[in-house]
Formats: sequence, C-alpha cells, structure tokens
Amino acid sequence: MDAKTLMLLALFHLIFLLSPSIINASSTRKIRTRKPCNSLEFYFHDIIYNGKNSHNATAVIVGAPAWANKTILASKNHFGDLVVFDDPITLDNNLHSTPVGRAQGFYFYDKKDIFTAWLGFSFVFNSTEHKGSLNFAGADPLMNKTREISVIGGTGDFFMARGIATLMTDSFEGEVYFRLRTDIKLYECW
Amino acid sequence: MDAKTLMLLALFHLIFLLSPSIINASSTRKIRTRKPCNSLEFYFHDIIYNGKNSHNATAVIVGAPAWANKTILASKNHFGDLVVFDDPITLDNNLHSTPVGRAQGFYFYDKKDIFTAWLGFSFVFNSTEHKGSLNFAGADPLMNKTREISVIGGTGDFFMARGIATLMTDSFEGEVYFRLRTDIKLYECW
Amino acid sequence: MDAKTLMLLALFHLIFLLSPSIINASSTRKIRTRKPCNSLEFYFHDIIYNGKNSHNATAVIVGAPAWANKTILASKNHFGDLVVFDDPITLDNNLHSTPVGRAQGFYFYDKKDIFTAWLGFSFVFNSTEHKGSLNFAGADPLMNKTREISVIGGTGDFFMARGIATLMTDSFEGEVYFRLRTDIKLYECW
Repeated sequence: MDAKTLMLLALFHLIFLLSPSIINASSTRKIRTRKPCNSLEFYFHDIIYNGKNSHNATAVIVGAPAWANKTILASKNHFGDLVVFDDPITLDNNLHSTPVGRAQGFYFYDKKDIFTAWLGFSFVFNSTEHKGSLNFAGADPLMNKTREISVIGGTGDFFMARGIATLMTDSFEGEVYFRLRTDIKLYECW
Repeated sequence: MDAKTLMLLALFHLIFLLSPSIINASSTRKIRTRKPCNSLEFYFHDIIYNGKNSHNATAVIVGAPAWANKTILASKNHFGDLVVFDDPITLDNNLHSTPVGRAQGFYFYDKKDIFTAWLGFSFVFNSTEHKGSLNFAGADPLMNKTREISVIGGTGDFFMARGIATLMTDSFEGEVYFRLRTDIKLYECW
Repeated sequence: MDAKTLMLLALFHLIFLLSPSIINASSTRKIRTRKPCNSLEFYFHDIIYNGKNSHNATAVIVGAPAWANKTILASKNHFGDLVVFDDPITLDNNLHSTPVGRAQGFYFYDKKDIFTAWLGFSFVFNSTEHKGSLNFAGADPLMNKTREISVIGGTGDFFMARGIATLMTDSFEGEVYFRLRTDIKLYECW
C-alpha cells in the first residue's frame, strides 16, 4: 500500500469513526419503532360506595361539587365527583377470579354535558407472575368504545416502563359497578 | 495488498465494528439534544363556578379545607381548594374562538403563604389539525411570570411524547376567570 | 491497490456505514443500563392540620368520605381521605434544618383493610445547589419498609429526568406528623 492509499484509508476510517455518533445524536428522536416490547391485558372492577354496600365497596366519593353529596353520584353527568379506589385486578372478566394485584388511584368526572373522566392510578402487582407496579395518567372520554391513556412509569418487573393503555368499558351496572378492560402496550422496557 | 496490510485492515475494521455499540451503550444517557422535535402554543380558559354562573362555568371546586366552602375560593391563598375542570383550548387568547380541544383535569392550591398550585391534566384534541392527547403534571408557582411543568405522555398524534410545557397567566379576572398560555416543547417524539 | 481490493474495501465500508444504524435501531429498547445517572437523598416533613395547629400545619384534608370530616383522619385506615400538602424538604432528618425546597402535591388513603396511599407531587428546588423541579407519581403501600414510585419528569436542573424514588417512613408521630426519606435515582438525564 502506498502513502496515498494509506491517507485515503485513514480519512475513510475517520469518517466511519465519527458517523455512529452523528447518526446517534439524532437517533433518540427518530429511530424508534412502534412495536411494543411488552403487552399485557387485565380487568379491574370498581364498586362505588352508595351508603349501603360498605362490606364490598372498593371505591368511595371523596370530593363533590356544592350541589351534590358523597353517597350518590352527582347530576350533570357526575361533573365534579372525585372518587378514590382500590380495585381488584383479574386476568379475566369475572369479579370473583383470584386477583393478581390491585388498581389503586382516583378518577373524577370533569364535564357537564357528557360523561368524561380523568384517571390517575397504579397497578400494584404481587403475584407469582408479576411483582412491581405500573403508573397511569390520562383523560378517559368514557362514552368512546376505546380510550387511550399514558403509562408514565413503572417499578420492579416494570422498571422505568412507558407505554399506552387502552381502556374499554366491559360492563356497567347502574351507578354502582363497572369493569374496565385494560390493554397495556409498553414501548419502553429496560 | 500483502498479508500485513490485510491484518491491519481487519484490526481497524474490528475496532470500527465495535465502536458504534460502545458509543451507543452510553448514548441513551448522554447524546440527547435539547432541541424540541415539536413546538405548540395554546390558550385555555378556566371559569370557576361561583354559585351563580352554572351556565358557563367550566370548573368547579370539589374539595376544600375544613374552614372553607365550595362556592367561594378559600382564604389563605385558597390553600386546600381542589378544582376539577373541562376548559376550552383555543389557538389565540380569545375565549370565544373555536376551540381546538379541551383541557381536562384538576388543580389545587397547596400553600398558605403565597399563591401556588399543582396541576394534573390532559389536552384532548379532536380537530382537523390534531387528534390525540397530551398529559401533563407539575407544580405551578403561579406568581412567577413563567412556570414549567412536565409533559408525561401522549397518545394519537402525540404517541409516547415527552417534554416541557411553559405556563404563563395571560389574564386573571377576579376569582372567576383565568386564561393560561401554554407553550409546549416536546423533546421525545416517536 | 488494485480494482478488486478497492471493491472489497468499498463493500466493507458500506457494511460499517450501515452497522451503526442497524445496532442503533433496536438500541433505545435494549442497551439501557440500570446504573443511575444521578442519585439524590432528601427528607420531607408533613404536619397535618387537626383544627388546632394552623400556625405550623403544612398539609390539610380537602376531601373525605361521607362518614368522615376534615379535621380528623377517617376511620378504616383513613380510607378516602385526600390531603394537599406543601412540605419543607431538608437534607437531613431534622424538621428545623434550612429547607432546600418544597414538596408540593397530594396524597390519599385508598384502602379499607390496611394503610396504603397514592401520591402525586413535585419537589420544587430553589437553593444554590438545585434549581428546578422533579415530578413524582405512584402507589405508596406505607406499611412496607421501602416503597418505589416513579419520577415522571423534571424541569430546570432536572430537565426531562426520569427515574425511581424509594420512600421510607423515617418517623411517624401519632396522626399529625410524619417524615419521609426519599432516595431518588434518575436513569434518564439530559
């Protein structure tokens, strides 16, 4: 190899040495696939306290607007009702299946004209299959068949997770019981 | 090319082959630019229910401390007042402009000595320009001209978004109406 | 160098040029270390208003279930009590140390059978050492010695941070004062 060839090679190599970091610099923003790294499906069951069901209620109204009280969901699409819950999570749609964890958090109804809610909660797992938690937040326009909220973090088996959870109302019985199907797709797994 | 040159080349290439992953291993932590991948600006308008304005109120007090009620914001800088809202989002500062979405969530006043609040909410878009949602959380020391909160997630057009939102009080009329300008800068776009 | 060698080199280089992006494409999901990029330890101090301590209370009950009031934490493990707080943050476990910031947010008790809570809050720093904020959310099963919640975002010095915070009850005096040790480990730093 002569001097000219060596120089050319050196130049090439310099370019290659730099190229990864150049490509890389923009990569955290651009080269992200929309293929989930983990998919999970659960149901959770919410039984709201109505003054008569304290033995099996899993949720309770803790805030209400001036015109309402805390044993009946408010008029005007429950606008202003704030509910705290600790609901069982099951793998199928049966309330009486063995829970794999607890859904713990709050929701409130935030619109006068139609039913819509906002949710902040965690799935806390303590089963042989999953240990740890997933944290969620987002708007829940509950008249839509499917709604998407954010998975904003996780711990344990779900260390640093992020993703999207799709909510579907699987059952709605009067104003006391509802069951949500939750399809979780994680796009950041560590 | 002789054997020695070939060996040298092989060695060089081995180094280059490894270098990207070496650089890469640390890159998710270090080579991140602070240049937003998306910038958006909106206004949202909050009209608090005061016992007389139920026709146009977009927000309502649902929690209050022992010394207060739910039709007047509490004394001591509203410390302890919890408000749920469903506010129109507009592109300019005019309350009567066509909304491009709804800001849905809650805020509460959390300090006795000065005005300061904490916010959890979503922007829910359903316009020709944007479909999907952005989720926010953070402290709002509202006496400061600008305040920064976190964009903790997004769905639809804002799939998996993260970023910073800068809040500015654009108008404040008594204790019934305020308007926030929200400058959103996303640093993670998928 | 002859034509054949040049062609070989060109081929090699093409491979190397492509390899970084190939490695990179999957890297945002796989090559993430669990070594924190920042570790911080703080204490925060919560004094709940009980009707007699308004001069030094830092927290107040703003929501409660139908069977409770807002000056005494509710029966049934405080199930349904919602508290808003603005607590001093200190570097050691002394309530009277100079605060380095404020912990501002809310928590509520969400279970009838045992003590467990859910937290949403921010650390707001304004010291010589730290400026900016960290935002947190997650379940707090407070009978456990350590509990993990998510760092869901940050601003200022903690721009775009994500991580895990480990909570430990450092002191618990009756139903008026508690002190939490918070070990923060950030895994995303920008």
